Amino acid sequence: MIETVNLSLNDVFQLSVDALLASGANRKNAEAVAAVVRNADRDGCTSHGIFRVPGYCAALQAGAVNGCAEPRVIDQAPGIVRIEANNGLAPLAVEIGRPMLIKKAEEQGIAALAIGDSAHFAALWPDTEPLAVAGFVAMSFVNSRAFVAPAGGKKRRVFGTNPMSFAVPRNGRAPMVFDQAASAAARGEIMLAARDGHKALPGWGLDPNGEETDDPSAILKGVQLPFGGYKGGAIALMVEILAALLTGGETSLEAERSYTGHGGPSAAGHLIIAMDPKSFGQHSFLKRIEELFEEMLADPEVRLPGDRRLALRAKTEEKGVEIPRTLFQQVREIIEG
Amino acid sequence: MIETVNLSLNDVFQLSVDALLASGANRKNAEAVAAVVRNADRDGCTSHGIFRVPGYCAALQAGAVNGCAEPRVIDQAPGIVRIEANNGLAPLAVEIGRPMLIKKAEEQGIAALAIGDSAHFAALWPDTEPLAVAGFVAMSFVNSRAFVAPAGGKKRRVFGTNPMSFAVPRNGRAPMVFDQAASAAARGEIMLAARDGHKALPGWGLDPNGEETDDPSAILKGVQLPFGGYKGGAIALMVEILAALLTGGETSLEAERSYTGHGGPSAAGHLIIAMDPKSFGQHSFLKRIEELFEEMLADPEVRLPGDRRLALRAKTEEKGVEIPRTLFQQVREIIEG
Repeated sequence: MIETVNLSLNDVFQLSVDALLASGANRKNAEAVAAVVRNADRDGCTSHGIFRVPGYCAALQAGAVNGCAEPRVIDQAPGIVRIEANNGLAPLAVEIGRPMLIKKAEEQGIAALAIGDSAHFAALWPDTEPLAVAGFVAMSFVNSRAFVAPAGGKKRRVFGTNPMSFAVPRNGRAPMVFDQAASAAARGEIMLAARDGHKALPGWGLDPNGEETDDPSAILKGVQLPFGGYKGGAIALMVEILAALLTGGETSLEAERSYTGHGGPSAAGHLIIAMDPKSFGQHSFLKRIEELFEEMLADPEVRLPGDRRLALRAKTEEKGVEIPRTLFQQVREIIEG
Repeated sequence: MIETVNLSLNDVFQLSVDALLASGANRKNAEAVAAVVRNADRDGCTSHGIFRVPGYCAALQAGAVNGCAEPRVIDQAPGIVRIEANNGLAPLAVEIGRPMLIKKAEEQGIAALAIGDSAHFAALWPDTEPLAVAGFVAMSFVNSRAFVAPAGGKKRRVFGTNPMSFAVPRNGRAPMVFDQAASAAARGEIMLAARDGHKALPGWGLDPNGEETDDPSAILKGVQLPFGGYKGGAIALMVEILAALLTGGETSLEAERSYTGHGGPSAAGHLIIAMDPKSFGQHSFLKRIEELFEEMLADPEVRLPGDRRLALRAKTEEKGVEIPRTLFQQVREIIEG
């Protein structure tokens, strides 16, 4: 059994802010990151919650990311916002770019936000959910350091875990959002399994000799595999091209090569697309979404993607979250310096 | 052994045109469809080649699709082209909409083409490949009649096989294009397995009782499954929303309910997105694509998506294709009336 402490979501936010400030971030950046961390723990996405704060702090302390970056918003084309993030953390860059992305998506019907030079821990639903709350269908693509072999490959890491997220507005309810790695498992999931002594599931990855293994530590040293065979491999490749090459970001291999071992977020490219159903002429879009979801849920074994997150959200907002005591102490030590 | 006849690609095109004309299509529609059919057989994608022509003809003869449709191009928004396809066949609608999509993608950086009311057999690379030849990164999403259970479901068909395609330009070479169903197998693949007495692979689908089976005919009566578990199920849902709900097309269930059993192409929605790397400011995009592909291919076990198609293309252009004699005779009978 792992000894835990109970924290309110506000505690998670405040501890994260304090640790980031103590590691050299300015308040704007610290609060933008801490909001993502709090929302991850709120939604039961432990692998992107306060678990990541020591990594953020190490990256700041190592000077690998710029915790005082002032992201600059560039009106790149009528349908494209580009952010010069200046090697800062993604959360503030996305927050600052969002208003222009929304304006362009309303005016053009479809618009994209491209960030080539920020550091990202790749929880993507914080990027797409606010766009769906504002009424847009949103997609987001991020690459990361190279951990994943292309379909057919066994030893050579080429892609990041390369997640994508998709969000749709709902009438009077939280949006439907999914956020999934193109790898069979998220990197954080494998790290948590290694930490907690759990086995890796079949298909998560191969050891450094290219052999199947259920040892998460061996996979962390070897390669992760795409989900769903060659089709998931194609998704990983698509995300790599959209996130890195269309934004001018580092490819996952380039990010791996420039990585200095700080344990923090990866340099990564990041593409967000927003589409306005009204501009497409679809005025009964929200009604039809509910009809589609009803058809899916007519089978009691089917759940909507993200439902677990929304259910946990209600619970953690009331009862807080359980955090390993060692992690809590680690964050306290960062704050106390 | 199935007895076959050898046809040149020009024979495939001409037989298809003649059969479609004999079934009531006009020349413009017949040639647009026949070009897709020829290119499918050219690229070894038998399941979308002349194999589909009797289905197209049956749909035309049943009056289920309009073989003389004049698709109308609508300038829906600065970033959106909409096509009123008038219940016609998708190939002509896409061909007619493409110039405005290209113009908008050049001007805005990103643009979309939406078709809500055409009938589609869901080979998508003919939609994205020409956009990549013109220099754009392209995505395409189509839904179809309901054949596929959502993740977790066992008996209830909700989604089409819901393919997506992604294409990237290459310097002086054919684009990299993938085109894959969100189901574990394409419908045509299962139909061909049933026709030729082959077994279904594990994960393709369930029989009408919701049980696993390797009998392709039982799967055709039961449900197909998404590829890659719940992540592929999320992709199927995303394609359904983009293709049907954002375009005003019928959902896969609505298409299933309005289907009259003609064996022809499904009513389906269809969304194509084109992005211009130059408008994103990425002037070394083509060079970086080649560098990424080189890194992938450094592992001799890795192939690029679509490579098999390109290799077959060279072969079939020289040697033609083998078609089952019964299929050839069926097409001849349609032509002879």
